[in-house]
Amino acid sequence: MSNDASLSDVGEFGLIDRITQDLPDNPVVLLGPGDDAAVVLATSGNVVISTDVMVEGRHFRKDWSTPVDIGRKAAAASLADIAAMGAVPTGVVVAFAAPSDLPAAWAVSCTAGLRTEIEGAGAALVGGDVTSADAIMITVTAMGDLEGRAPIVRSGAKAGDTIAIAGRIGWAAAGLAVLSRGFRSPKKLVDAHRFPTPPYEAGPLAAKSGATAMVDVSDGLIADARHIATASNVVLAIDSSLIDVPEEIAAAASAYNMDPREWLLTGGDDHALLATIKKGRKVPAGFRAIGVVEPAGDHGAGVTVDGHFVTTAGGHQHFTS
Amino acid sequence: MSNDASLSDVGEFGLIDRITQDLPDNPVVLLGPGDDAAVVLATSGNVVISTDVMVEGRHFRKDWSTPVDIGRKAAAASLADIAAMGAVPTGVVVAFAAPSDLPAAWAVSCTAGLRTEIEGAGAALVGGDVTSADAIMITVTAMGDLEGRAPIVRSGAKAGDTIAIAGRIGWAAAGLAVLSRGFRSPKKLVDAHRFPTPPYEAGPLAAKSGATAMVDVSDGLIADARHIATASNVVLAIDSSLIDVPEEIAAAASAYNMDPREWLLTGGDDHALLATIKKGRKVPAGFRAIGVVEPAGDHGAGVTVDGHFVTTAGGHQHFTS
Repeated sequence: MSNDASLSDVGEFGLIDRITQDLPDNPVVLLGPGDDAAVVLATSGNVVISTDVMVEGRHFRKDWSTPVDIGRKAAAASLADIAAMGAVPTGVVVAFAAPSDLPAAWAVSCTAGLRTEIEGAGAALVGGDVTSADAIMITVTAMGDLEGRAPIVRSGAKAGDTIAIAGRIGWAAAGLAVLSRGFRSPKKLVDAHRFPTPPYEAGPLAAKSGATAMVDVSDGLIADARHIATASNVVLAIDSSLIDVPEEIAAAASAYNMDPREWLLTGGDDHALLATIKKGRKVPAGFRAIGVVEPAGDHGAGVTVDGHFVTTAGGHQHFTS
Repeated sequence: MSNDASLSDVGEFGLIDRITQDLPDNPVVLLGPGDDAAVVLATSGNVVISTDVMVEGRHFRKDWSTPVDIGRKAAAASLADIAAMGAVPTGVVVAFAAPSDLPAAWAVSCTAGLRTEIEGAGAALVGGDVTSADAIMITVTAMGDLEGRAPIVRSGAKAGDTIAIAGRIGWAAAGLAVLSRGFRSPKKLVDAHRFPTPPYEAGPLAAKSGATAMVDVSDGLIADARHIATASNVVLAIDSSLIDVPEEIAAAASAYNMDPREWLLTGGDDHALLATIKKGRKVPAGFRAIGVVEPAGDHGAGVTVDGHFVTTAGGHQHFTS
């Protein structure tokens, strides 16, 4: 492939050949790409599945992120959902739509990013579809194995459980703020916006260690905590003094004259895992306690921060402004 | 919802609520929409998976098809891939991207079409993702169960096997030709372009009845027959006298001064199932024999029609013109 070849030069099948080159062996893959469908092991008799779509201009910008970053981010969103059920990611399929004049090298790098994230999570790319479109759109569908455990759903939190979080919060939002102001550093924040680093292994670990409910923090801590609270009909009482403000976030907030807690409490896209851990159980390795579950009170189910019931903030709905 | 509400009026969660209303019970669904991921039965210890993306302007036009038709077509493409492995469709997830000013009623009708096709194939909508985008893009990922059988792959055809087809060919291409010329009838042809009617049940039936290879005919009979031929290193010798020309297709071809076999041999999008049936076995119900598998000859593996080796024709590659 020449360096300036476009997707229309290499064609659909040429692109697929490049994407699926040298796929590593993974024992869950019974039949990989190349047929009408793939076949993946589901030893425990059921399969966890989640799909996530990212659109150019909405979820990423080509001038802010490398194609590798964008691929990683697209895969991470779906893989983190699998971890949030307490499952281990297995097989992944990707639908890739892009303009015909997109450099083929861009598409190949993007799928390299997808594979980096998928294989880093222990899963395997098993199939996909590619087509032309006016904008780049990447849909990642991940499957997972519960290893015989029950899924950790949102509705299982009980009063007295410990609220615990694994992974980063606020980093991607701070990075986006930096980029939005036209800066490219601090690199650590900007990179956090470019692709998240979800704590995949923390999901199954929490499931084995007394998690009663769990979500992937994609919309923001408060918004996703509210998902557990509503489904479980409880209050998630968050104690903000238990949430450390990382130095990098504090510095950026100070530079922009902002409260860093805004990013920590409402920033999405870091794909932390928020769990409630059964009363009396130790918080699992990799998690830190940030509050306690209380019975639904006068305000009904919801989230409190330092005792104040939070009715607004946090959570992005697509289609609304 | 008012009749003229847009997606931005109802919001992401409002749309999801409408899409997932009154989902019928299906025993394969252990956990449906509403959590980070769904959980679907995979009793036989493995799962078949395929993903398919359709883009407005490339795969459908809003002025040619109703939203229900478009939803049906998007689901059919993915479900037919599952059937082509010899599997029974189980759970399906959908990623739906659309402009914020799209009427919400359009989106709801489109997902009603998705559900009609999914549920008609015996499967269940178990989850999805919705987001805003400049054009409508629908990614459908379907899973299936092999019921303990081996998957029917493309590489299993052997000399002496019977080539057999279930479902329609040429209809969608003829319908597209009609629409492209500005006509809206004959309705039966136009409808065939608007949404296919894949013979889902023929897939598992063929698998139980001696199928040695099978593909979903999405690119055209010759192009997809070539997929089996190449993977199996054989020649698929098609006898065109065994392919009936339906009256509707003959009439349209005559009106346009065309050879109807062009549509039958190269038209895609009908999602017929093309199988090779083990030598000596009866062609399964719903299939008709259209030729025989021969050893690779002077031209190597490939497809012959009435004894002539076909080097061109059939098969659409995205990105190329």
